[in-house]
Amino acid sequence: MTNATKEFIQKLTAICGSDYVKSGTGLEESLLTDWTHSVCGAALAAVFPANTAEVAQVLTLCHQQRVSVTIQGGNTGMSAGGIPAAAGDSNGIILALRRLNKIRAIDQQARTMTVEAGCILETLRQHAAAAQLFFPLSLGAKGSCQIGGNLATNAGGLNVLRYGSTRHLCLGIEAVLADGRIFSGLSGLHKNNSGYDLKELIIGSEGTLAVITAATLKLFPPPQNPVTAWVEVPSPQAALALMNLIQQHSNNALAAFEMLPAEIFKIIARHQPQTTLPHQNDIPTWTVLLETTDTDSEHVHALLMQALEEKLANNIQLATSETQRAMFWQVREEAPLILARHGKWLRHDIALPVAALPAFIAEVEQRLRAVCDGLYIIGFGHLGDGNLHLSVRPLDADPQEHPELSTQLSRAVYDCVAAYDGSFSAEHGIGQLKVELLERYKDPTALAMMQAIKQALDPHYLLNPGKVLKPLPTVSPAPLVR
Amino acid sequence: MTNATKEFIQKLTAICGSDYVKSGTGLEESLLTDWTHSVCGAALAAVFPANTAEVAQVLTLCHQQRVSVTIQGGNTGMSAGGIPAAAGDSNGIILALRRLNKIRAIDQQARTMTVEAGCILETLRQHAAAAQLFFPLSLGAKGSCQIGGNLATNAGGLNVLRYGSTRHLCLGIEAVLADGRIFSGLSGLHKNNSGYDLKELIIGSEGTLAVITAATLKLFPPPQNPVTAWVEVPSPQAALALMNLIQQHSNNALAAFEMLPAEIFKIIARHQPQTTLPHQNDIPTWTVLLETTDTDSEHVHALLMQALEEKLANNIQLATSETQRAMFWQVREEAPLILARHGKWLRHDIALPVAALPAFIAEVEQRLRAVCDGLYIIGFGHLGDGNLHLSVRPLDADPQEHPELSTQLSRAVYDCVAAYDGSFSAEHGIGQLKVELLERYKDPTALAMMQAIKQALDPHYLLNPGKVLKPLPTVSPAPLVR
Repeated sequence: MTNATKEFIQKLTAICGSDYVKSGTGLEESLLTDWTHSVCGAALAAVFPANTAEVAQVLTLCHQQRVSVTIQGGNTGMSAGGIPAAAGDSNGIILALRRLNKIRAIDQQARTMTVEAGCILETLRQHAAAAQLFFPLSLGAKGSCQIGGNLATNAGGLNVLRYGSTRHLCLGIEAVLADGRIFSGLSGLHKNNSGYDLKELIIGSEGTLAVITAATLKLFPPPQNPVTAWVEVPSPQAALALMNLIQQHSNNALAAFEMLPAEIFKIIARHQPQTTLPHQNDIPTWTVLLETTDTDSEHVHALLMQALEEKLANNIQLATSETQRAMFWQVREEAPLILARHGKWLRHDIALPVAALPAFIAEVEQRLRAVCDGLYIIGFGHLGDGNLHLSVRPLDADPQEHPELSTQLSRAVYDCVAAYDGSFSAEHGIGQLKVELLERYKDPTALAMMQAIKQALDPHYLLNPGKVLKPLPTVSPAPLVR
Repeated sequence: MTNATKEFIQKLTAICGSDYVKSGTGLEESLLTDWTHSVCGAALAAVFPANTAEVAQVLTLCHQQRVSVTIQGGNTGMSAGGIPAAAGDSNGIILALRRLNKIRAIDQQARTMTVEAGCILETLRQHAAAAQLFFPLSLGAKGSCQIGGNLATNAGGLNVLRYGSTRHLCLGIEAVLADGRIFSGLSGLHKNNSGYDLKELIIGSEGTLAVITAATLKLFPPPQNPVTAWVEVPSPQAALALMNLIQQHSNNALAAFEMLPAEIFKIIARHQPQTTLPHQNDIPTWTVLLETTDTDSEHVHALLMQALEEKLANNIQLATSETQRAMFWQVREEAPLILARHGKWLRHDIALPVAALPAFIAEVEQRLRAVCDGLYIIGFGHLGDGNLHLSVRPLDADPQEHPELSTQLSRAVYDCVAAYDGSFSAEHGIGQLKVELLERYKDPTALAMMQAIKQALDPHYLLNPGKVLKPLPTVSPAPLVR
């Protein structure tokens, strides 16, 4: 370690305290490794500031010394955005936000909650519930992901159909810029047309434009009258028609509308035979799990009967108790985990215009089988918002051992997505895993605008390096520490 | 006219055709004058491109020659954002978007509509209705405002409580940058985490970052089961409690919750005595007009009865027919127009955290009366989303004739707004009328970020000059035409 490095770490220690700066052998591998254990980076040190002021001081110091900063929340992301880039700068630091974990305020009358970035999502949901309110964001990692990361990646999850993505649940943010200035944009306002909406720019920018330190979130009345059902559908077209039948006649009462293929149930049956599957006899090609809330349940039952008559559904199984409802959801929530345990997959988190999904599903299978005939293709996910999680692998082979074939298969998926005006990243973001995809598939003007904005707000590309955007060739960071 | 100017206008004519370039005496005053007739600017020419390609060609030419461009939609804005700045550049051009008026597509299954910027809002609402769908944006100017202007200003209106502002109704946009490049961001996707959300940045930037040429909008099922009622409330606190009672027990079924003071009804009674007012006897200090949709109307009636019992309401008058419902709304919609006809007012379009409104209303009146005792103070508007339209004037005096007093009064309002963490511009935007307010009350870091982004995307400050941001002193536009 050079003297300059030692001095730099001493300055970090002066800001955060010696217990909250880790370097050398004190730097645990879990801080450097993606939770999937497939990506690993390196860093000079990790710091754990206690509050926004300390975050600002750390960033001011790093800006002065041109040290890059990887921002880490719960490290649950799907695109390795929260760890140092594998092929990147090993002389940067990790800024972990777990100590910014205060709930600053809950306002029951205004139905808002102001919280710090390091709060665990599930904790926020519990605090909202204790105030007879509901925070709708929910995803598999809710027990360990942090709201700052949810905001930085504009996380989606299970309730987007009804409540929108994380950005739609946020009224205001506080954030620290690359040079340490604090953007004070916390706000409980529902209308505020006073200049550019910087909050909306920072949300979803994956820590590359600013470090979110706190947010004011919207809360909702707790949902009531859930109707939860497994519905066997004859085709994706029928599923779409069923969804529209319910939405049009219940004022968008659908809280969730998930479509699962037969293959996923077969894998569950094989690997977790104790699971109660929704099918009594043969497993149909497609099964929907739907849920409505806050509406007349009798009316929803009548709509489901109508769907049976109109042959939009072949069989319907309603949850008749809260326990059964939880069991239905458990099957859906565990499906991706069982899939992951069943082998290595090429995973694609894609979005399509909702009405194009049936045609897309048919065409992408054709395109994939044109590349390679012997394939498992499992597409499931959030039909309601057009988000498909498409997993592909050669029959009984590890795609990682066939890198050329894997590239061809993923290319076939993403080219088909582009042909249908879809997105190569629906809810998982870019991180370090999709930087090349962004360059290939994003509108070139949009990409140039992103670079211009990045240069305007973080000219030395210090924030979350190696994520989302590569530095332009003209940018030459001159780290003073190394 | 110099030869360079003549040549420039010839080039515009080559792009748009001679019928669609107006200059000199052909340049009608209505293009240069705010609809309130209180602000007027000047320009070299006005052009009326037919499509996005022509907009791009015009902007490329203007960028090459460093000619500034004022973007005009329906010219119905409240902050004079759509006409050349009064104290600004008289050698720029006006880019009017009225000929970009195609509805490119309506997708009934996906409930989306792709439309060009010059489409009139009411026309869009009618086309949606013809497809058994509903476009919720509604405001007084709906018969003449254009969707491009609604997006550029992130217009609010009557349905924000239920459906959000214009930005929340938009899935994607197409826009042209200052240098003529086309940003192709049209999209029917509900999830798309593929880089910075540039759409959200451009929406609400009032034409200073890009010219919106088209948008994909969300449509909804038509609302059903409206319950519309005038409710006499004992206080703003009671109004707030009433609102929360209904929201909490009807899953946010409120479509509107408007609060009107006694003064406005007195003015209506005096100036338009044929109007049916909601009160049988004395006019109470505060009256609410509320509407719920898409929920069990019996349940809403029960909640209103509960409000009477709990003394949150003193008197309730339900609309018993569609005609009566329309009459209720007519009183609300005409109120600002009658107020405007009744005299000159200092108008303030402000937003407060919803729960702070009762305390704010009391305090702002105190602060105003400390400046000047003899005042009319009329605060009404959208209590549901915290947006107050606060009109003030000295008793029987024109505030324009007392500029110093007017400044003091408005300062008292805005300082009080700032003390309550509110916004000096809720839904009307900055335009050219609130540039100084933005400089005074906006978070300085936010202002610096706005300037950095403006410089990144429009370095010569050519787009909508004199609106939102003043050029930094370092920017010296060097117009080649003049």
